Amino acid sequence: METSLKRIKKHIENLREFNATPEKGLTRFTFTEAERQARAYLEAELKKIGIEPYADAAGNLFGRIESENKDAPVIMIGSHYDSVKNGGHFDGPAGVIMALEIMTKLKEEEFKPQYPIEFAALIEEEGGRFGSGLYGSRAMAGKISYQDLLEYKDKDGISMAEELENNGYDPKKIKEAERKPEDIKAFIELHIEQGPVLENEAKDVGLVDFIVGITEFKVKLEGRPDHAGTTPMDMRKDALLSAAEIVKTVEKSAAAAGEGTVATVGEFRVKPGAANIVPGEVEFTVDIRSKSAELVKQVKSNIKKALEKEEENDIKHEINELLYVDPIPLSEEIVELFVESADESGFNYKKMISGAGHDAMVMAELTDVGLVFVPSHNGRSHCPEEWTDYEDLQKGIETIYKTVKKMGGADE
Amino acid sequence: METSLKRIKKHIENLREFNATPEKGLTRFTFTEAERQARAYLEAELKKIGIEPYADAAGNLFGRIESENKDAPVIMIGSHYDSVKNGGHFDGPAGVIMALEIMTKLKEEEFKPQYPIEFAALIEEEGGRFGSGLYGSRAMAGKISYQDLLEYKDKDGISMAEELENNGYDPKKIKEAERKPEDIKAFIELHIEQGPVLENEAKDVGLVDFIVGITEFKVKLEGRPDHAGTTPMDMRKDALLSAAEIVKTVEKSAAAAGEGTVATVGEFRVKPGAANIVPGEVEFTVDIRSKSAELVKQVKSNIKKALEKEEENDIKHEINELLYVDPIPLSEEIVELFVESADESGFNYKKMISGAGHDAMVMAELTDVGLVFVPSHNGRSHCPEEWTDYEDLQKGIETIYKTVKKMGGADE
Repeated sequence: METSLKRIKKHIENLREFNATPEKGLTRFTFTEAERQARAYLEAELKKIGIEPYADAAGNLFGRIESENKDAPVIMIGSHYDSVKNGGHFDGPAGVIMALEIMTKLKEEEFKPQYPIEFAALIEEEGGRFGSGLYGSRAMAGKISYQDLLEYKDKDGISMAEELENNGYDPKKIKEAERKPEDIKAFIELHIEQGPVLENEAKDVGLVDFIVGITEFKVKLEGRPDHAGTTPMDMRKDALLSAAEIVKTVEKSAAAAGEGTVATVGEFRVKPGAANIVPGEVEFTVDIRSKSAELVKQVKSNIKKALEKEEENDIKHEINELLYVDPIPLSEEIVELFVESADESGFNYKKMISGAGHDAMVMAELTDVGLVFVPSHNGRSHCPEEWTDYEDLQKGIETIYKTVKKMGGADE
Repeated sequence: METSLKRIKKHIENLREFNATPEKGLTRFTFTEAERQARAYLEAELKKIGIEPYADAAGNLFGRIESENKDAPVIMIGSHYDSVKNGGHFDGPAGVIMALEIMTKLKEEEFKPQYPIEFAALIEEEGGRFGSGLYGSRAMAGKISYQDLLEYKDKDGISMAEELENNGYDPKKIKEAERKPEDIKAFIELHIEQGPVLENEAKDVGLVDFIVGITEFKVKLEGRPDHAGTTPMDMRKDALLSAAEIVKTVEKSAAAAGEGTVATVGEFRVKPGAANIVPGEVEFTVDIRSKSAELVKQVKSNIKKALEKEEENDIKHEINELLYVDPIPLSEEIVELFVESADESGFNYKKMISGAGHDAMVMAELTDVGLVFVPSHNGRSHCPEEWTDYEDLQKGIETIYKTVKKMGGADE
């Protein structure tokens, strides 16, 4: 391989150190000491390879290899370097180190790109501190206002606007972070899979062709709370019994829909919740994800039918919509370049969907997007056990490295 | 009818007034102002009909019509007059007013019993204040020690021992409340059904032949928490999906067992409990009740088989026993007397099981027990909506009145 496993490993291990909870996974919240240290490290590494780091008005960190044609749109590569509370060392940083390694390699070989290549290290993707997830990419997409910055607050009530000022930014100028579609040729991200598929199927890299659409809603079932000892089975209106039926419908409908469609009942509350009282009320969430908006609709419609059927058992229901996101197709052209690059290196790849958002999802509104997944050990993520073998990470980086060269190569 | 509807209604309505939460159902906790007022009312009413009220060492209230033979065992009639928090005006008091009305009627007609007839108004049956349910009857059964009284505490940490002293009792003499089996010929209680059966089947009175046996246990299911977006349906270990299967098994097994067997999943907790995480753990209670210990066992065994089957889905389980009570057959002889009495009055009766405990359950260890149920409107209980029509209550009282006269009548 042309990229350096040694450098990749070193960067990941060095970045690990900038962490508010060293014994309990990675906690690196935006505008904290851990984050400033990580940023200083990335800036120093860029400088070492002759790239001048700069920040946009939102606080994202960038560095460029310019092309001869100064007006050409950029190929942006990267991910985020913040974390959830007590998370892992790969969710985010793996993609930032991808970008750093590729910049380093291109500089080494004095690559003269046709399009500028831009390193991107984004902040507050997790929303861990300010509850404002995908912040860095949303700022680039022009979706964040000064008002938003006043409203995004951490648990101590400190706003993002305040912290931007404290760190030398002017929150009123947030719109200057906006990028124009015509200025970006592509955004390419590497991320850990956060799921078990690549490992289970022994694939080296995942080439994402769709980011799933998501529908989330809350269901409230209302029966009648009754004494568990004195109410015969056939005179009950047991909301939990109906909920059990719906939980099974959710699973069956997603499995039947196929094409990677998933559906989950995750939050689940039973009232009154005493051993000797028949449950009178159950509230739960349903989360449906698919690459096909049609399949999401189909699963939801099955669930609604099952809920209506429960009315025969005198169980009433209410549905409250929480979230709707359309599926996002990623660039077919970039996926084909990923395939070529993986084939050249002899990597075992899998075209797959991404079941989670990522900055790539937001950037897809601006430009062509490519997203490469690397295997997550046991599918674990957002926990201290999160792990990706360095060799696997390198294969993802190598795939993007080759793709970037294909895309950004000098006009022949 | 020979009993007086007018008096019954008056007593129920007067007792309503002694209440800590007048706008929100009945709250009458042991050794509170509301309880002392209710007790004073009962004492005054007993005195009015020429009965001298007295208390036992536990704080239960009694009053007797003596028989010629001073050594004859007593026929005790009554129930409790404490309540749960924000409960109703019938759970407990209905049975105490039964006793008061029968004593009044017997006094009116100068009935000369062969056995003493004893009015009993018991305290702390609900355990509402000190968490020590069935206290009054347990004290009579000799099951409460001084140590227990030190340990039974209300939410402010005041012990039952302290409150007994404050109310003029000596908690160290608690064992003096104990009654000997040879001193009691029978205990007869009237209680609201707290279930919907009598009303649904348009029956006037329920004649209880069994108090159910109860098995209660906690089940913990362990799967694996996974990201709801990135974990394919066939790679999940969803503890909630298994729990849904068990909830259905619980219901089906109880319905199949028949003979009034009931089973309930009432407490139910899902972890981690976030919309976008596949549930990794579910904890729930199972409560099984039947007049047959064999049927309780059979339902439990079905549930265990279903739990073992879930191991095929990689869902582990743990079972923790919480409670086991054997079914208690009540006196067949008394039930037959109830039937005779109900027939004489032209009441529509139903022999039925009691799905809840009641002081009658404890007293069954000491003596022959009879228990009459009166209809609960909509099966509601332990809530402000708890209601029994006065006419229905009178029918239950009349049934016991006739039965007491049959049992306690002068030797012919």
